[in-house]
Amino acid sequence: MAVYTDVAPVELEAFLSGYDIGSLTSFHGIAEGVENSNFLVQTTTGSYILTLYEKRVRREDLPFFVGLMQHLAARGLSCPEPVAARSGAILAEVAGRPAAMVTFLPGVSVRRPTAHHCAELGRGLAQLHLAGADFPLKRANALSVAGWRPLFEAAGAAADTVAPGLSGAVAAELAVLEANWPQDLPSGVIHADLFPDNAFFLDDQLSGIIDFYFACTDFLAYDVAICLNAWCFEADGAYNVTKGRALLAGYEAVRPLSEDEKAALPRLARGAALRFLLTRLVDWLNVPEGALVRPKDPLEYLKKLRFHQAVERAQDYGLAA
Amino acid sequence: MAVYTDVAPVELEAFLSGYDIGSLTSFHGIAEGVENSNFLVQTTTGSYILTLYEKRVRREDLPFFVGLMQHLAARGLSCPEPVAARSGAILAEVAGRPAAMVTFLPGVSVRRPTAHHCAELGRGLAQLHLAGADFPLKRANALSVAGWRPLFEAAGAAADTVAPGLSGAVAAELAVLEANWPQDLPSGVIHADLFPDNAFFLDDQLSGIIDFYFACTDFLAYDVAICLNAWCFEADGAYNVTKGRALLAGYEAVRPLSEDEKAALPRLARGAALRFLLTRLVDWLNVPEGALVRPKDPLEYLKKLRFHQAVERAQDYGLAA
Repeated sequence: MAVYTDVAPVELEAFLSGYDIGSLTSFHGIAEGVENSNFLVQTTTGSYILTLYEKRVRREDLPFFVGLMQHLAARGLSCPEPVAARSGAILAEVAGRPAAMVTFLPGVSVRRPTAHHCAELGRGLAQLHLAGADFPLKRANALSVAGWRPLFEAAGAAADTVAPGLSGAVAAELAVLEANWPQDLPSGVIHADLFPDNAFFLDDQLSGIIDFYFACTDFLAYDVAICLNAWCFEADGAYNVTKGRALLAGYEAVRPLSEDEKAALPRLARGAALRFLLTRLVDWLNVPEGALVRPKDPLEYLKKLRFHQAVERAQDYGLAA
Repeated sequence: MAVYTDVAPVELEAFLSGYDIGSLTSFHGIAEGVENSNFLVQTTTGSYILTLYEKRVRREDLPFFVGLMQHLAARGLSCPEPVAARSGAILAEVAGRPAAMVTFLPGVSVRRPTAHHCAELGRGLAQLHLAGADFPLKRANALSVAGWRPLFEAAGAAADTVAPGLSGAVAAELAVLEANWPQDLPSGVIHADLFPDNAFFLDDQLSGIIDFYFACTDFLAYDVAICLNAWCFEADGAYNVTKGRALLAGYEAVRPLSEDEKAALPRLARGAALRFLLTRLVDWLNVPEGALVRPKDPLEYLKKLRFHQAVERAQDYGLAA
């Protein structure tokens, strides 16, 4: 839930006068996204989302993010497509913030994905990877293996206040993954945060992928591992292998995984679990007094990590042999 | 800014299955309204607003509010129109909250109204008063003269922490108004909160009036006085008589004020200023630690009150002689 910056209608109208998208008919802040302020803008020509980038998004990353959406949309992926101003620019400034306007995507996210949704998502993820293959810009993944130790140090001994022994468990896992993180897997553009709230469905078909503000250049199979974590566990912490099989089969129908990627999948899944465990832990330990938004539970990812630690082969995730 | 209650898409779909409004295509929490949770719902037939009533709205008042919108819309006023379920009901329950779905109104609110906007608003307010004349339900105005002393007592001596002498100024004004509040003016349905953010415009024409959750039965001219306070002062606290003249002329073009109403206008304007001064004062003194939303400044209404105290005749507001 967000909308951090207030935009006056008159300011919006001045901004829109630089675009060929008709005149403003409606304008509402929408309570979505935790990093940015988002507004649903309706004009005589259609619906758009105006995003104002708040301070957690680095300005130097914006050309990567909006360029990527433009690139993916041009290759037929259903994602928000940046709208160029009459000047040709796709980045602007509104209310003192960097801003971009993108097309509005219809669709509704699912809270409890079925195996069918997982299959759709797997196909969509592989399409994203293929569509991104020739995207020329690069952005390092600040939340891959090299970024985890600084997060762990930021949490420090306070981790044990969240759960006894958590600090030691994370330290041990971190040591294992730092020593054994895969090398030389196929790389490219990954979404890196493709949780169910970032995927839209219409009539149970994937209708769009949104929120590219963690996208970066990393192992494609790491994105698969993130999705297994985000889509294939039940609320009680159990891994649902039917959903995993559906997601992986959907993915492989579009982009088959190499033998190296398959072999690395259990480690990548551990890494993905540790990444969300660590960022949630830091958020959990840094909630402002009286905040309205309750942070997500880091221990959900400790449970997932425990599951992955016990996995011996990628087939345990439901991967076709 | 709001959205207090989270609604799962699957829950929304189950709710919508009771309506003949097509299938869901989009669903976004919108950051508006301070009392309720609001969602923009798009279906294959159009756009709607789903409102979930949070605890500050009393359930027993809901038939008045939704019945009023239905009544006004049926008489041609451009306001949100409740959508009946297939069962005929216009009140429902979603996520454990009372809820209603209304039509979506296009339009954009203005931050700095011009005299032209004030004229439009005056006409719309008078149309609302005429359209509400035969609405059969009644709702007492809890925020008229009888409600002010309890608010003042809730603020208590802490008022002086907001501005030195504020407590004494309010006590004196309260005594004057309690002894001299008008009697027997024409009464009916009033909006009671028609601030610029509750009025939509398209091409500078009033396109809709929203947020009827303070509506009640009271003097019609008190609603005019509220609007003079809300629309006709500049940011520096000065009364803009050109805007006042436009608002009053717009109103009188549709519903002329009686001589009694004109004579009472200065007292009604003082009362309206005191009402918003008091509610803002109570909110100001009761901000939860760390709250994201900064309450509105009560002293803005002290300045307005000082202006009204110096007004001798209704003509000073710009009323035609």
